[in-house]
Amino acid sequence: MDQESLYQSLRRPSRSVSKLVLLVLDGVGDIATSQTDYLTPLEVAQTPELDKIAISSALGRMIPVLPGVTVGSGPGHLGLFGYDPINTQVGRGVIEALGVGIELKRSDLAARGNFCSLNADGLVTDRRAGRIDTELNEILCKKLCRIKRIGETEVIIKAASGHRFVVVFRGGEIAGPVSDSDPHREGLPIKPVQSLTDSKKAKGAANVVNQFYKEALSLLDTEQPANGFLLRGFSHLPEIQTFQERFQLKSASIASGSIYKGLAQLIGMENIEESHNVKEKFRKYCLEYEQFDYFFIHVKDTDTAGENGNFDQKVAVIEEVDRALPVLFEKMPQVLAITGDHSTPVSMKSHSWHPQPLLIHSLVSGSDRLHRFTETHTNQGSLGIFQSHYLIRLMMANAGLYNKFGA
Amino acid sequence: MDQESLYQSLRRPSRSVSKLVLLVLDGVGDIATSQTDYLTPLEVAQTPELDKIAISSALGRMIPVLPGVTVGSGPGHLGLFGYDPINTQVGRGVIEALGVGIELKRSDLAARGNFCSLNADGLVTDRRAGRIDTELNEILCKKLCRIKRIGETEVIIKAASGHRFVVVFRGGEIAGPVSDSDPHREGLPIKPVQSLTDSKKAKGAANVVNQFYKEALSLLDTEQPANGFLLRGFSHLPEIQTFQERFQLKSASIASGSIYKGLAQLIGMENIEESHNVKEKFRKYCLEYEQFDYFFIHVKDTDTAGENGNFDQKVAVIEEVDRALPVLFEKMPQVLAITGDHSTPVSMKSHSWHPQPLLIHSLVSGSDRLHRFTETHTNQGSLGIFQSHYLIRLMMANAGLYNKFGA
Repeated sequence: MDQESLYQSLRRPSRSVSKLVLLVLDGVGDIATSQTDYLTPLEVAQTPELDKIAISSALGRMIPVLPGVTVGSGPGHLGLFGYDPINTQVGRGVIEALGVGIELKRSDLAARGNFCSLNADGLVTDRRAGRIDTELNEILCKKLCRIKRIGETEVIIKAASGHRFVVVFRGGEIAGPVSDSDPHREGLPIKPVQSLTDSKKAKGAANVVNQFYKEALSLLDTEQPANGFLLRGFSHLPEIQTFQERFQLKSASIASGSIYKGLAQLIGMENIEESHNVKEKFRKYCLEYEQFDYFFIHVKDTDTAGENGNFDQKVAVIEEVDRALPVLFEKMPQVLAITGDHSTPVSMKSHSWHPQPLLIHSLVSGSDRLHRFTETHTNQGSLGIFQSHYLIRLMMANAGLYNKFGA
Repeated sequence: MDQESLYQSLRRPSRSVSKLVLLVLDGVGDIATSQTDYLTPLEVAQTPELDKIAISSALGRMIPVLPGVTVGSGPGHLGLFGYDPINTQVGRGVIEALGVGIELKRSDLAARGNFCSLNADGLVTDRRAGRIDTELNEILCKKLCRIKRIGETEVIIKAASGHRFVVVFRGGEIAGPVSDSDPHREGLPIKPVQSLTDSKKAKGAANVVNQFYKEALSLLDTEQPANGFLLRGFSHLPEIQTFQERFQLKSASIASGSIYKGLAQLIGMENIEESHNVKEKFRKYCLEYEQFDYFFIHVKDTDTAGENGNFDQKVAVIEEVDRALPVLFEKMPQVLAITGDHSTPVSMKSHSWHPQPLLIHSLVSGSDRLHRFTETHTNQGSLGIFQSHYLIRLMMANAGLYNKFGA
């Protein structure tokens, strides 16, 4: 019997429903270096609320996929939601398209777009066109929307935030896999899109995208700084079990970034909020408390601070979350898990493979008698280190949702 | 997608090469018992250099294969080199043959030999013939070399160190698997070699070996104490990926024992040193620093002290390594891992299944704020306990050799 079937066979039929909350502080885990006296943001931050909850929690650490593997947000969150990230790969195009609210059909080919700057020789001088704002982005997308079709293929374009947008190619004899047009660094020209297999449809898709490029670039050629764009992550909607099918839990997502909203939609979680403010997110949870069994609450700014290499900013975000926690505690869930989707060390300014700290609090979580939620405290916890796709199982066990295995 | 393919797909194309060093203190891990006030050799040893490096390292423990499984040096090291020891089994005969410099052909059948003592009834009275010295061993092997062929099969004999030698059977209608002639304890006769399958070639191999025995024993019958020999680990060269193919790293081995040299040769590591002296090994590393990406440096005496049940000797070897470390630090590698291939507890006088302590030091290893490299300190580290074949992945992650997985 495989693990999936075992868990499924032990699932208790629905009973008085527990509330499970997964609070993700994106990229919260960090590493201690000599530059900061071997202290991490979680260690430096004043966190009276987290400390209070830590003492009556089980602590541990998780790796998103495998030792040494650094993940992006997609696999990072799929793991937290209980999907094996290696065998559940979702293209960036699909995630972004769902995130901006496009209802994808099975045969759609979706790509993530970045507006960029090109010089007179057609070389990319800024992959993000100086990070243009969303307003300009929307104007540019509107311009590109004049291209309705390429041959038999419908083209759907929608702005996301900042310099990001989505293109969906629908219908006609097209299919992935095709390569990115993004050269992934500056000083190079936009790459023609190529089919990655010999299939007729993949070649068709590459032709359609390249034809789209020709028409689209001529529409942008008088623009500054965004006179070009890069496409990547061409992908189709994957076959994926919904969260409800998989765990028999009615779930809601309280997250603002399009990638998190897209992931939630992909697995059938209801997106119920738009606010970026942590306290507002917690208020929304309290308001919706009765309506769902499982809440995913996402805080992005810990990751942003890490990516920016800003230690104090990361500390400040953690403290902001801590100050907001009493709002969440107004409706204390039966099971609360606090963790990251991966670590984003300030000193590395990027995601990393270091295990993320985890806290699980419930009436039956037990206490590891550890007084704080930090990397070194979680090293000593009873949960040890495990792959993050097991987290949901531990949360469900804490909620009393599994029967005993065997007599 | 399997794990191998995932790691392979994330490998960054070659870039300015980092230096990775794996320092193996063979069998260094130990267990605390009441006989030594519940202290281990690593705890008793004065190790100012290791302490200095420990504070800025990530710590953890590894198991070579599976919980409760004690490994020999072969699987122990294959794990450290990133091969799954369960699915990469290499016979002892092959390892020893490579170690003494025999260029094996694919169909060769190699065995490890021990000179032994037999009494008048043909019973083994000492499995190692009083541990005769290498000089006598070479004289005896020369004698055995008079046997050039058995039927169509060429016989190649070469002395190793002490009472150990290698026999390779080449050509003719022979193939493994065949059983050992070694009864594995004293008081029993030499066992006739038997084919372990019904195949004609295995039966042929058993006949050839038994015929060889008849001729060889008659050559030795006037010798004392080495009037017999035992053969074990009959094996063929396995199909195995080279280290370079597997990890795209140019690797060197600085080890003196024939088994370690044989293993290194098997996976295409260059053997670059013969010295048994630790400081000399580190000097050799500094000299060759520019020539390789990955260095395996092996210290044998920690294991020997454990096997001898000599606590003070094990402490002394650890302290010797510690005193030599400044030589290694003259060319500080980007990534340094220090560990054992298994534990060899003094109180057990043998290899054991207890997890080996591990330290990984790099600019991005982070610090677990643990002040020493001991069993109890590594228990509290951020690396947790994991199978040793993942070590190379963590080392490569620390060297920046992997791309991010997923968007």
